[in-house]
Amino acid sequence: METVSQNACFGGTQGVYTHKSDACGCDMTFGLFLPEDAQDGPVPVLWYLSGLTCTHENAMVKAGAQGWAAEQGIALVFPDTSPRGDDVANDDAYDLGQGAGFYVNATQEPWAPHFRMWDYLADELPALLGREFALDMDRQAITGHSMGGHGALTLAMSLPGRFRSVSAFSPICNPTGGDWGRKQFAAYLGADEAAWAAHDASLLMGERGFDGPVLVDTGTSDQFLELLRPETLAAAMAARRQEGTFRMQKGYDHSYFFISTFMEDHVTFHAEALYAE
Amino acid sequence: METVSQNACFGGTQGVYTHKSDACGCDMTFGLFLPEDAQDGPVPVLWYLSGLTCTHENAMVKAGAQGWAAEQGIALVFPDTSPRGDDVANDDAYDLGQGAGFYVNATQEPWAPHFRMWDYLADELPALLGREFALDMDRQAITGHSMGGHGALTLAMSLPGRFRSVSAFSPICNPTGGDWGRKQFAAYLGADEAAWAAHDASLLMGERGFDGPVLVDTGTSDQFLELLRPETLAAAMAARRQEGTFRMQKGYDHSYFFISTFMEDHVTFHAEALYAE
Repeated sequence: METVSQNACFGGTQGVYTHKSDACGCDMTFGLFLPEDAQDGPVPVLWYLSGLTCTHENAMVKAGAQGWAAEQGIALVFPDTSPRGDDVANDDAYDLGQGAGFYVNATQEPWAPHFRMWDYLADELPALLGREFALDMDRQAITGHSMGGHGALTLAMSLPGRFRSVSAFSPICNPTGGDWGRKQFAAYLGADEAAWAAHDASLLMGERGFDGPVLVDTGTSDQFLELLRPETLAAAMAARRQEGTFRMQKGYDHSYFFISTFMEDHVTFHAEALYAE
Repeated sequence: METVSQNACFGGTQGVYTHKSDACGCDMTFGLFLPEDAQDGPVPVLWYLSGLTCTHENAMVKAGAQGWAAEQGIALVFPDTSPRGDDVANDDAYDLGQGAGFYVNATQEPWAPHFRMWDYLADELPALLGREFALDMDRQAITGHSMGGHGALTLAMSLPGRFRSVSAFSPICNPTGGDWGRKQFAAYLGADEAAWAAHDASLLMGERGFDGPVLVDTGTSDQFLELLRPETLAAAMAARRQEGTFRMQKGYDHSYFFISTFMEDHVTFHAEALYAE
């Protein structure tokens, strides 16, 4: 692992690190905010998964999360959204290939060799983080935006016991039913739609739900509502009687101005779960 | 004036607007955050002047100021750092020409026709803002970063009565004495150094000071300390017995991670002055 940069930030350190990933077969870069409290011992971890076109950097500089995490004594992890590099397959579209990993393990060519974001986030990166940093990996929570909200929800429901709480900003809620999902799942997972269901937050909510609190925020003026399909997740949460809060925020859109506005709520929500006995 | 974008943000609106500038002889773009309170009547204004290479956008997305401004009921203005466009002179260096206006009125060719940022910020843009938005132009304050800290300090001291308070993040403190200043003043203002003194915060502090509180923050790990010359301003403030606070913040560098960390302090500082009777 190599240190790319470290900046003092809200009493702690905002770092960027690169490492050789076995899961993805390429170098991967991630951001990690360590609050001052990490100098005294391991701190809880909140994962932030980003949306289409993003790298590890977007949320790190625009989401305004570090101040609230510092206040709560929580670390923040900002992974990349896909494998990267000249050897890695890509597509001209913004919503397929590099920057658009959709947090799955691809089984189809040309994606299969590198696009293994599920394994990277479920296994490889948490193991690395636990080894290298003062993080309490028994206290993890996860959030994300758009494609990253989809990733946060599907990882949380599929790895019971891993995360104490899950939240999402304007998540893709039902990718098997919309154009942010069907196109990518067909490319990465193949034509058999049976393989897609494991990566659909609304279907997973209907099947199993999440053993902990859930918080979802979406803007009523989000320009991508037809692709996000929030109504499917709201219905599934209610039908399951899932512990959680589903909010539509009046006038807000899909931007980081929306995310930063509600970041305090989300970090506070996760802190309550992470510090509960 | 044309609206480029408007995003809901912390209960208010983050807007971007373009207008034909007479001062600069080109189209100019600025960001304006209006808190929810502006729906009930004019609100005070805090100007934020950005540093080298920045546009109106950098601080708007990275400084984390809107949340604190919303809490205080204060508007934020994010002007550009120079004139822009194909007709506008430029230079290959990052620290001269477009993105590097240094907040002066150029008198030398090829800069003189467009590089009139002083007039733009002292006269034209405030007049436009007062006409078009619910802003109380009798209650203004100003801050900035690096080259923008220089701009904030020099405007505040040169326009007595205009601003109730002034602050700066890692400002260029003594441009007549360092390479962030001498090169640009020679280009924009000519070889006669007598014309430069009016744009040097440390010299202005020695001559006249500021009729209100001053807050300056600079990181001890700032990679540009030799160009910023904070010791000159600290000495001038102390020698004048200027009301104010000059802080060196341990371990922080020149980045927006530093700015966002101390933004709450600066907005709160300005709010106290803006709401004082």
